[in-house]
Amino acid sequence: MTPKVVAVAGATGLVGRQMMQVLEERNFPVKSLKLLASERSKGKTLTFKGETIPVEVLSEDSFKGVDVALFSAGGGTSKKYSPCAAKDGCVVVDNSSAWRMDPNVPLVVPEVNAHDIAKHQGIIANPNCSTIQMVVVLKPLHDAAKIKRVVVSTYQAVSGAGIKALDELKAQTLAILEGREPECSVFPYPIAFNCLPQIPQSDAFADNGYSTEELKMVNETKKIMGDDSIRVTATTVRVPVFSGHSESVNVETEKKLTAQQAREILSKAEGVVVQDDLSKQLYPLAPNAVGKSETFVGRIREDVSHPSALDMWIVSDNLLKGAALNAVQIAERL
Amino acid sequence: MTPKVVAVAGATGLVGRQMMQVLEERNFPVKSLKLLASERSKGKTLTFKGETIPVEVLSEDSFKGVDVALFSAGGGTSKKYSPCAAKDGCVVVDNSSAWRMDPNVPLVVPEVNAHDIAKHQGIIANPNCSTIQMVVVLKPLHDAAKIKRVVVSTYQAVSGAGIKALDELKAQTLAILEGREPECSVFPYPIAFNCLPQIPQSDAFADNGYSTEELKMVNETKKIMGDDSIRVTATTVRVPVFSGHSESVNVETEKKLTAQQAREILSKAEGVVVQDDLSKQLYPLAPNAVGKSETFVGRIREDVSHPSALDMWIVSDNLLKGAALNAVQIAERL
Repeated sequence: MTPKVVAVAGATGLVGRQMMQVLEERNFPVKSLKLLASERSKGKTLTFKGETIPVEVLSEDSFKGVDVALFSAGGGTSKKYSPCAAKDGCVVVDNSSAWRMDPNVPLVVPEVNAHDIAKHQGIIANPNCSTIQMVVVLKPLHDAAKIKRVVVSTYQAVSGAGIKALDELKAQTLAILEGREPECSVFPYPIAFNCLPQIPQSDAFADNGYSTEELKMVNETKKIMGDDSIRVTATTVRVPVFSGHSESVNVETEKKLTAQQAREILSKAEGVVVQDDLSKQLYPLAPNAVGKSETFVGRIREDVSHPSALDMWIVSDNLLKGAALNAVQIAERL
Repeated sequence: MTPKVVAVAGATGLVGRQMMQVLEERNFPVKSLKLLASERSKGKTLTFKGETIPVEVLSEDSFKGVDVALFSAGGGTSKKYSPCAAKDGCVVVDNSSAWRMDPNVPLVVPEVNAHDIAKHQGIIANPNCSTIQMVVVLKPLHDAAKIKRVVVSTYQAVSGAGIKALDELKAQTLAILEGREPECSVFPYPIAFNCLPQIPQSDAFADNGYSTEELKMVNETKKIMGDDSIRVTATTVRVPVFSGHSESVNVETEKKLTAQQAREILSKAEGVVVQDDLSKQLYPLAPNAVGKSETFVGRIREDVSHPSALDMWIVSDNLLKGAALNAVQIAERL
């Protein structure tokens, strides 16, 4: 690949910083790197490959001469600036939810539907973190046995809500241990020593009672897998874990798969690591997944309540495969 | 009810202490209270209604003249001493898993199957904590619409693993916040800032890949509900919450229920409180359930993946309704 002029929009956020790190670690051929953020970050600098780079204020003119822009700046910012970037010939890989369900925008997890990248018209959407790690595991099972229905409950880390949320978890944890009242600013209720069944914490619920995050899992799964017949229900829950999302996933398939068949299929799947040896208490755990590229799956077993279903436990680094890494992997395949 | 001679076996444990507190708070007619524990607790005293009571060492002769014994002393101890107690005319309400699936022992959640109490032959089993709070909510739905299948994922508090586990959570949390290595003694991996898909942490998994806790939910649900046709699958997970179990429950019914119908049914159900107003971000939360007798349910919605299923979020105090309170409620109905 010829070296590219790359921009990271939202460079100072948790995912923006991870994007820079992933570009560096994977030796993405960067000719030059442009760091963009809001007015608030004016004057800041960040380091890339030992070089200090100033953070510029994102504007409509930011993308002239830029080949690829990785956006992690929120939906509103993406809605406003991604079309400007695309008009200037830049390809945007956007981590927000702004474009994901747009029929003209491919929604891509490279291990699942890399072929959709070619259809882009300047913008490619990076799916929701919880959905990415789930479909990486579901796709090979779907190819082997056709998935009919998925019932998923998530155990999502606080890093998915940003830097301030991580600070809030730490401050609340200390407060509770010291017998003080925990203070809430990011979350509506304390997240320390608690489980909050509302993601994102700031979004209203849909009329049907689902949260935004839950509907993302329902809808994005179908689009990425390219199969509208796959039915999904989700209950998404924030847990007091710093990083690494865990998921309890029940998968009904048309053709019955044994647990052993599923393990064999998944052990050959790209981007998936099977961690499933109960005699050694080996199963995926969030802290072990942090900093890793792969999605980990274990606790695979045949569902005793259904003639053709599997239960499993899927864990991945929500900032990496769930966001920054998946975006860079898309850029690599452009 | 005429005043009874009551014994609490395992009085010094978390559940034992809760049993004493519940007896006191509910004004159970206690003629006299006998506190029993293992050799390790010899010399200890505990307070009941302002009176200091010495802890006696549990033996085969402990139950002479005792009317009701509440056992929370582990499966092995119960296997050994419950028959002695029953032989001496004492009725045992046992919180361990030792007798739960014995066909001669009723397994009772008073709101669900109080009628089974009358069948006892000296021993009545108190179900598993996760199962109790789930069936309290499932039973009225089953009566209204016949439940076919349940897919549950749990978010279980550390208090379910005992006093030492709570100390371990606190110590590990502080260690991680201070950048030290967390030490594990109760749990195989740190529970602080983590989710462990293995309950109990010390039990081997079954050959079919299910944990002991998961199989309890599968089997005890059928026995308590008195309907073997109800199919259940469970994934049980320990989360870093001090007390209060949360559950994400998907319920398929023969007859379709709307979310609103389910709310109406549950709002009239004994022992259940519906907390479900999304416009006010009202849903059940573990810390809010602690110290409460009821089981709380919210996030009730029609499953978009199935023509006749509901998703919901069920929370209760695992030491109270999940253990001590349910046991005392059984004793009250004797």
